[in-house]
Amino acid sequence: MSVIPASHTDLLERPFFGHLATIRPDQTPQVTPIWFSWDGELLAFTTSTRRRKYHHMMANPAIAISINDPEQPYRYLEVRAVVERIERDPDADFFFELADRYQLSIGRGDLDDTPDRVKILARPVHTTQQG
Amino acid sequence: MSVIPASHTDLLERPFFGHLATIRPDQTPQVTPIWFSWDGELLAFTTSTRRRKYHHMMANPAIAISINDPEQPYRYLEVRAVVERIERDPDADFFFELADRYQLSIGRGDLDDTPDRVKILARPVHTTQQG
Repeated sequence: MSVIPASHTDLLERPFFGHLATIRPDQTPQVTPIWFSWDGELLAFTTSTRRRKYHHMMANPAIAISINDPEQPYRYLEVRAVVERIERDPDADFFFELADRYQLSIGRGDLDDTPDRVKILARPVHTTQQG
Repeated sequence: MSVIPASHTDLLERPFFGHLATIRPDQTPQVTPIWFSWDGELLAFTTSTRRRKYHHMMANPAIAISINDPEQPYRYLEVRAVVERIERDPDADFFFELADRYQLSIGRGDLDDTPDRVKILARPVHTTQQG
């Protein structure tokens, strides 16, 4: 059973941007927009080993993601989650799967960090929501 | 001099939602959508002393806020900031100032936590941005 309430599952299923919060080594927060996908069990997103958020999640697997509906901005879902595994994505296949989901047209030759791409899988542990 | 780059100041000046990350007492992140305003020096937002985020910021003043442009979602600004002061807002005047900014029609009688409202003022210390 997922902790995600049925009333807000669509915010994970539709291609909305999430805002991913991680904890920096100095115990201050980082938060940036991300693409993600949801399979009913785990949240998945892409980053690269060159990015700070990757190193934050390696050091501290506690994350949170906030998603609101652009057409109903007071309707939102916050998911607290724990990074469960990090998989190498050396051909950036998962990156391009997300690019399709978010309808961004980008060629394989235009991504400059393909060999360093990773897929982050995180298990939701708690939510808050409104609307 | 503000740390906010001139190229992205409009993301603070236009009434876009921010996603505010705070640190919980257990050193995990919280992130939720918020209204805010920007006067060129400090970010200001409203909450109430009943909310967890208030208690998080009292305990740890390090925050971060992520804003993207709904019409150009890859264009974003992350602001790391430190809460500098918290002012009581017992008549919720600042809440209604923000409601006007975000064009939400809400009557004074419809807000149920007016006496507990506070105005949080935070000073940006660093940014990251794209687009």
